[in-house]
Amino acid sequence: MDTHISPVELQKAYRLINHGPTVLVSARHAGTDDVMAAAWACALDFAPPKLTVVLDKSSKTRALIEQSGAFVVQVPTAAQLQLTHAVGNLSLNDDPHKLKKCGVGLFGIKGHDLPFVAGCSAWLACKLISEPHNQQAYDLFIGEVVAAWADTRVFSNGRWHFKDADPSWRSLHYVAGGQFYAIGEPLTVQE
Amino acid sequence: MDTHISPVELQKAYRLINHGPTVLVSARHAGTDDVMAAAWACALDFAPPKLTVVLDKSSKTRALIEQSGAFVVQVPTAAQLQLTHAVGNLSLNDDPHKLKKCGVGLFGIKGHDLPFVAGCSAWLACKLISEPHNQQAYDLFIGEVVAAWADTRVFSNGRWHFKDADPSWRSLHYVAGGQFYAIGEPLTVQE
Repeated sequence: MDTHISPVELQKAYRLINHGPTVLVSARHAGTDDVMAAAWACALDFAPPKLTVVLDKSSKTRALIEQSGAFVVQVPTAAQLQLTHAVGNLSLNDDPHKLKKCGVGLFGIKGHDLPFVAGCSAWLACKLISEPHNQQAYDLFIGEVVAAWADTRVFSNGRWHFKDADPSWRSLHYVAGGQFYAIGEPLTVQE
Repeated sequence: MDTHISPVELQKAYRLINHGPTVLVSARHAGTDDVMAAAWACALDFAPPKLTVVLDKSSKTRALIEQSGAFVVQVPTAAQLQLTHAVGNLSLNDDPHKLKKCGVGLFGIKGHDLPFVAGCSAWLACKLISEPHNQQAYDLFIGEVVAAWADTRVFSNGRWHFKDADPSWRSLHYVAGGQFYAIGEPLTVQE
């Protein structure tokens, strides 16, 4: 594991996605790994931390999650713009070489049988909370975050440091039609 | 209604929140209006457009939504940083003058008996889709977007124009402890 990757306290894990980035969702089952992009992911609770993510029925990642009951939500960076768009537009169901073609490198973290995407800024390992009605009616999946990590070059001491880090570390926020925005400047409330 | 406010086609309404902004949620019931901030709001479907929002049981806005079955999700701007933080930290249950104290101005839109917050960049009028289990177990509410509008100075022809608009129009993305980020620069995928 990259020496810059450090655990994030579970009670602060929500901060990794609180600002609404587009995320990558990855999963593993029976020797198959897949990674997809999801703009529709959102924090749901603080303690234990939970999140929601919308997973289309056509996605192989969804099938792997339904089979394994686990997944990773990770925060890609501006440097991963092409990768993020690519994994969101090619299905493993159509191309068994998807991950290689999209430039995805995976790594492992001890104690978690899950595929983590290299080069991201943050990772949240999740256990699926089975809610069949939500999954069928709305494609809506709920995960409990069981462990989290971040790259200390852009997130440390419970805070993002987008302003001080290289711009290539900025999170991605998808709109439509290949158009993303990077996260911008900090704005601090006057108390 | 401000002459800059223009309807957004329902099939493009998801684009108003797809980049993960912190939103304001407003509702009205029996002569009472309330507005709260929500970082945990997310698109859920394209057609008909749906969204999710997490509403704490302590919030008066939630009670109004449960009673009226309707609400507005609106996208506040960098110019509304203090307002957004203020409505997220004061409850109408504790102070009947909350909205005035927080500097909230409301306006109406014909055909919708809902309070719309002035000065925002976009508004999504929603009908509550009742899901008692989600609401009770997770504080998770699902809305169907029945109409949407945006301020044409920052959103037109189905697209945000954050780069060309004044920086005061940028959307807000909350992290924690009074720390927000504004949305940043556009990044376009090379096809």
